[in-house]
Amino acid sequence: MILVKVVVIALGGNAFLRKGQRGVVDEQWDNVSKAMKQVADIVEKGYRVILTHGNGPQVGNILEWMEALAYKIPPLTMDIANAMTQGWLGYMIQQALHNELMRRGINRVVLPIINRVLVDKYDSAFRNPTKYIGPYYTKEEAQEIAIKKGWIMRLDPRGGWRRVVPSPNPIDNLEVEAIKKLVNEGYIVIASGGGGIPVIKENKEFRGVEAVIDKDLASEVLATKLGADYLVILTDVDGVMLNYGKPSQKLLRKLTVSEAEKLYKAGHFPPGSMGPKVLACIRFIKHGGEKAFIGHLYKALDTLEERSGTVILPD
Amino acid sequence: MILVKVVVIALGGNAFLRKGQRGVVDEQWDNVSKAMKQVADIVEKGYRVILTHGNGPQVGNILEWMEALAYKIPPLTMDIANAMTQGWLGYMIQQALHNELMRRGINRVVLPIINRVLVDKYDSAFRNPTKYIGPYYTKEEAQEIAIKKGWIMRLDPRGGWRRVVPSPNPIDNLEVEAIKKLVNEGYIVIASGGGGIPVIKENKEFRGVEAVIDKDLASEVLATKLGADYLVILTDVDGVMLNYGKPSQKLLRKLTVSEAEKLYKAGHFPPGSMGPKVLACIRFIKHGGEKAFIGHLYKALDTLEERSGTVILPD
Repeated sequence: MILVKVVVIALGGNAFLRKGQRGVVDEQWDNVSKAMKQVADIVEKGYRVILTHGNGPQVGNILEWMEALAYKIPPLTMDIANAMTQGWLGYMIQQALHNELMRRGINRVVLPIINRVLVDKYDSAFRNPTKYIGPYYTKEEAQEIAIKKGWIMRLDPRGGWRRVVPSPNPIDNLEVEAIKKLVNEGYIVIASGGGGIPVIKENKEFRGVEAVIDKDLASEVLATKLGADYLVILTDVDGVMLNYGKPSQKLLRKLTVSEAEKLYKAGHFPPGSMGPKVLACIRFIKHGGEKAFIGHLYKALDTLEERSGTVILPD
Repeated sequence: MILVKVVVIALGGNAFLRKGQRGVVDEQWDNVSKAMKQVADIVEKGYRVILTHGNGPQVGNILEWMEALAYKIPPLTMDIANAMTQGWLGYMIQQALHNELMRRGINRVVLPIINRVLVDKYDSAFRNPTKYIGPYYTKEEAQEIAIKKGWIMRLDPRGGWRRVVPSPNPIDNLEVEAIKKLVNEGYIVIASGGGGIPVIKENKEFRGVEAVIDKDLASEVLATKLGADYLVILTDVDGVMLNYGKPSQKLLRKLTVSEAEKLYKAGHFPPGSMGPKVLACIRFIKHGGEKAFIGHLYKALDTLEERSGTVILPD
C-alpha cells in the first residue's frame, strides 16, 4: 500500500505580483512560472496537490476597470469579479504548471474549477464590513458615492477613501465533492481561488453576495472538508514571527496548536496578514488535520519537509 | 442497460444578453436563469449534458475596460480576457442551473472548468486576422494605435475602426480527458467557454495567443473528442434558413450532411453568424456524430426532440 499525502497549498499574492512590479503581463507569467517550479517540486515528490490562491490586486484591478467605465458599461458585482479572477489566475497557474510538469516528463492534468464558498447570511461581518476594496477616492467623492450607490466608504490608512465590504467566515465549499473525486483521480485541482465566490443560501437557492472571503480561511475549509493531511500557506515571509519587524523578531519553527492559539489570542499576529494564516492553521489542526505549515513561496518544499518555515502540530 | 445520450449544448449570446439590453447585472441573471430552465428540461429528460457558451459582448467589455485604463493598469492579453469570461459566465451558468435543478429536486453537480483549446501556430488566420474585437476608434486613433501597439486595425462595417485578431481553427481541447471523466461521473460540465482559451504549442510548451476561436467550431471539437452523440447549437433564430431575411425565407427542418455541405459551399450562410454553426454541424456528423441540431434557445428541448429547429443527419 502506498500512502500518498494530500496537501492543500495556498498561494499568496507574490505568486503573481512581486513588490515594485506594475503587473505587466510578462511579469505575471514570470512570477507564476517561478512559483510553479516550487509546486512542481512538491508534485514530483509524490504528494497529491490541491492549489488555492489569493486575488487581492487582481480583483482590485477589475473593480477599478468597472468603476472607470461605469458611465458606459454597467458594472458587475463582487461575486462576478471574483469569478473573473478565478478564470484569469486559474488559467495562468494551469498553463505554467502544466508546462513545468511536461518539462520534467510528468504527465498530470491541471484543472482549475469555478468554485463557490458558502457564507452565513447572518454573519456579523455583513453588519460590520472591514475589507477595503477597489479604487481610492477623495472624501468628497466618497461621500457622493456613499449616497448614490449605498456603499460604505472608509478612510484606508494606506491613503484615501475606499469602499469597504464584509469579509464573512467561510462555512462550506460547494464543489468539494467534485474536487475530492478529481483529486482521487490524480488531477491537480485549482479551487477556492480568491477565497471562493461568496454565496449565501436564501429561499432554497444560492445567491452571490458583495463580500470577500479571506483566502486562507477558505483554504482551511477546503482542506478540512477534503480530509487533506496537510495545509501549506505560502507567502512572502519565512514563517510565523514573534515581534515581526522589530529587532527582537524571531521565527517560530514549530508550534503546537495550543501554543499557536495562545499567541493568536494574545494579539501577536496582525489581522489582514499573518493573523488569518495562523487562524487557518489552528482551525485545520483542530478539525483533524495532521500538519499545517506557513512559509516562503520560494521555499515551498523546504517548508513542507520542515527544513524552513513554521509547522503547527496537534498537541 | 440504459442508453444515455451525451449532448454538447452550445449557448449563444442571448443566454446572457438580449437585444436592447445594456447588460445590467440583474438582466444578466434573468437571462441566464431563463436559459437554464431550458437546459434543466433537457437534464430532467435524462440526457448527459455538457455546456459551452459564447462570450462576444463580455470579452468586448473586458477589452474596453483594459484599454480605458491602460495608462494606469497594464492591459492583459486576449487569452487572459477569455479566461476571465470563462469565470464570469461559467459562474452564472453554474449558479442558475444549480438553483433550477434544486427547485426540481434534481441533485447534480454543475462544474465550470477553465479550458484551453489548441490551435496551429501556422494557421493561415494568423496572417489574415478577420475577427473584430474591443472598442471602436476614429481613423486617426486607429492609425496611432496601429503604430504604437502593432495591432491590425480595420473599418468595421458596423461603424468605426476596430482591432482585428485571428480566428484560427480549433484542433484539440486540452482538458477533454478530464471532461470525459467528469461527464461519466454524472457531472454537468461547462467547458470551452468563448471558444476556449486559445493556445499554441511551441518549443514543447503551451502558450496563449492573441486570437478568438469560434465558439461553435470549438464546441464541435469538444463534442467529437468526447464522443458525444448529439451537438445542439442554440441561438436567436428558429433554425437554418434559406434566403434568411427575405420574403422567401424558409426554415429547413431536416438536412443530410451532404445537403448541408452543398448549401454551405454555395455560400447560403453568412460567415460570423449561421455559417460557422452549419460548418460545426457538418464537421460533427462527418466525424461520427449521430445528430446535430440548430435551434432557438427558448425551444431547446423541442429542438433536441425534433419538434422545432433544424436537424442535420448522416447521409
